[in-house]
Amino acid sequence: MTHIVEIRDPAERSRIAEVVLRDLPEWFGLEAETAAYIKAAAELPTFAVKPQDAFLCLKQHTPWAAEIYVMGVRREQHRRGLGRSLVAAAEAWCRDRGIRYLHVKTLGPSRPSRGYDATRAFYEAVGFVALEELHGLWDEDNPAVILVKDVRLGFSVMPIEGLPELRAGDDLAALIAERTGLQDGDVLVVAQKAVSKIEGRVVALADVEPSGRARELAGEEADPRRIQVILDEAVELVRVRPPLLIARTRQGYVCGSAGVDASNAPEPETVVLLPVDPDASAARLREELRERTGVDVGVIVTDSFGRPWRAATTDVAIGAAGVEVVRDLAGERDPTGYELHSTRIAVADEIAGAAQLVFGKLDRVPVAVIRGLDVRGDARAADLVIPPETDLFR
Amino acid sequence: MTHIVEIRDPAERSRIAEVVLRDLPEWFGLEAETAAYIKAAAELPTFAVKPQDAFLCLKQHTPWAAEIYVMGVRREQHRRGLGRSLVAAAEAWCRDRGIRYLHVKTLGPSRPSRGYDATRAFYEAVGFVALEELHGLWDEDNPAVILVKDVRLGFSVMPIEGLPELRAGDDLAALIAERTGLQDGDVLVVAQKAVSKIEGRVVALADVEPSGRARELAGEEADPRRIQVILDEAVELVRVRPPLLIARTRQGYVCGSAGVDASNAPEPETVVLLPVDPDASAARLREELRERTGVDVGVIVTDSFGRPWRAATTDVAIGAAGVEVVRDLAGERDPTGYELHSTRIAVADEIAGAAQLVFGKLDRVPVAVIRGLDVRGDARAADLVIPPETDLFR
Repeated sequence: MTHIVEIRDPAERSRIAEVVLRDLPEWFGLEAETAAYIKAAAELPTFAVKPQDAFLCLKQHTPWAAEIYVMGVRREQHRRGLGRSLVAAAEAWCRDRGIRYLHVKTLGPSRPSRGYDATRAFYEAVGFVALEELHGLWDEDNPAVILVKDVRLGFSVMPIEGLPELRAGDDLAALIAERTGLQDGDVLVVAQKAVSKIEGRVVALADVEPSGRARELAGEEADPRRIQVILDEAVELVRVRPPLLIARTRQGYVCGSAGVDASNAPEPETVVLLPVDPDASAARLREELRERTGVDVGVIVTDSFGRPWRAATTDVAIGAAGVEVVRDLAGERDPTGYELHSTRIAVADEIAGAAQLVFGKLDRVPVAVIRGLDVRGDARAADLVIPPETDLFR
Repeated sequence: MTHIVEIRDPAERSRIAEVVLRDLPEWFGLEAETAAYIKAAAELPTFAVKPQDAFLCLKQHTPWAAEIYVMGVRREQHRRGLGRSLVAAAEAWCRDRGIRYLHVKTLGPSRPSRGYDATRAFYEAVGFVALEELHGLWDEDNPAVILVKDVRLGFSVMPIEGLPELRAGDDLAALIAERTGLQDGDVLVVAQKAVSKIEGRVVALADVEPSGRARELAGEEADPRRIQVILDEAVELVRVRPPLLIARTRQGYVCGSAGVDASNAPEPETVVLLPVDPDASAARLREELRERTGVDVGVIVTDSFGRPWRAATTDVAIGAAGVEVVRDLAGERDPTGYELHSTRIAVADEIAGAAQLVFGKLDRVPVAVIRGLDVRGDARAADLVIPPETDLFR
């Protein structure tokens, strides 16, 4: 692992800058500019890899923005991750000071240069985004490009807007790919309704003949045809307070109305069922997105479930592909040495809930992208179904 | 509401640019530059407020970045929200194309100007952040400042790193304020352990004398002193499978071990209890943060709870202040007109789960900031405790 140190002595800052920059004539071949960098380094926050292999100087411009003012890695040390480690140290320095954006200016792409092409590729590889080539900032031969990176930690939850009302057979992967630029490691969260609709899991109540049991449970308040659909989807009625039913579904989930829902149905007098196999639905969408975009994302299919002891619903995962579903900390130890022998975290459910916060219920935003969360894995949401015999909470 | 239109006719673009810019000599007093803007507008994506009140032209530089190339609002229309609406339209245009950053260059602060001071204040008010003053990009008298905004929708979840191990009496508000720049509308999520520790809710097992009942429940496997602490915190044992206990706590929550936890305790042979009144703890922290930073944030205190029917734990809200806890959609209608008569969403629990994803369990990151989610309110987490008689799921 590369060991990064912050250099606090002004003379040492300039010394390491000089040794490194003199080793890089392809980038720092103009004597006046190079001398200016060496001089400026003395007064700037500076990180280095010792003895004199690489360095990076920062310049804070505003309370929220700092710049990588100059950076260099000695030629023989290239391609060993030193630059990446220096940038990581610079980002941590920024975060400690509440700085949100780190930026850098380098030679722009309109002037071809093998060295600077590699420099820009490096910055883009560590997450910088080019804003604009600034002609006239330096001289006419040397256009500057400014690149920026948001250095905050954590993750983002972004709705995908503008999806049409979905119908059976719609190509959801195509509709999503058109509306957003996915990246490797993103998690795409899709509300169950969207998946069920494209899979044709919609029942017209006019086609349902309610049984006597359904009529009895429906009483005066409910539509017996809807109750019949619930009975058809349920393998077990877990709680019954007519006309409200909590059921275990064929998929193993315990939820209100066996997941049968009339809200957000494509038309009045229809109800939407859960996907037949939501894990398979997630895997299919993941594969279609990979074929279409070349990008490897995780997919979680969610639904809003009630739960005992607590009011209201939260969204949980009912289908998953390419993601960690349960994070098991068994055997790991906390900082005092206490072994966490029963700490298992339902990360897929927490991701589902986070996505719900941008779904809303009334608008048509059934898809969100989670970016910046490392939850790659290969578990299924079915792993969240607890075997009744081991369910202490039940 | 301001009606924004996209202008597609090149001549009309230049015409509206000319009318507006000629009305703003304080900003556009240099004939050559103004003529260049009017000419350039013809070829740029342009939004306007009709008839000829305001306009904004965009220039896309890279697949991920575009610039507000020129923008103007006629003087008599100032301070009516036209500029804000134009920027919102520009952001939507960017999002539709997968563009992440919108930037703008304007006169920098080192050259005083009442007009441009207002311009920069406007951009900052709509979320732009100044990166750097670029001397030499324009002419020596006119330093350019470049400001940038991340136009993606949705919200961010950011861990606060570097908090020390917490002790009774620590000033958590001060420790948080030192480590992050909070903004109005942020939600600060704090793991229960952090709150309990500063409130001194830690019990040394050496001081506990277990009762006969505690010894019986502990059996051979568990520490009877820990069981005694659980019994002391419980008002009702909801499920008992010795030595595992699910209890209703004094606060009304149903959870494993009545919330008594040995992991992440400050020292071995100690256990941490839930805060006495987590809603009050949240309100206190909120008030202390307001006093210290002047910023109005929401606060949610969380804990990891198991639940029936589903494996593993999710973090839920046990304390809240200044936030919406349950979003009630009763009476609202979905797009087909179906009335959502029972859709209540436990947004505070979903926020708690989102924050857990950056907490981890083994490291000391017990605080996260949620930014970009509009959940201001004044509910309490106690509202999430469901009255047993209405709990169909129970």
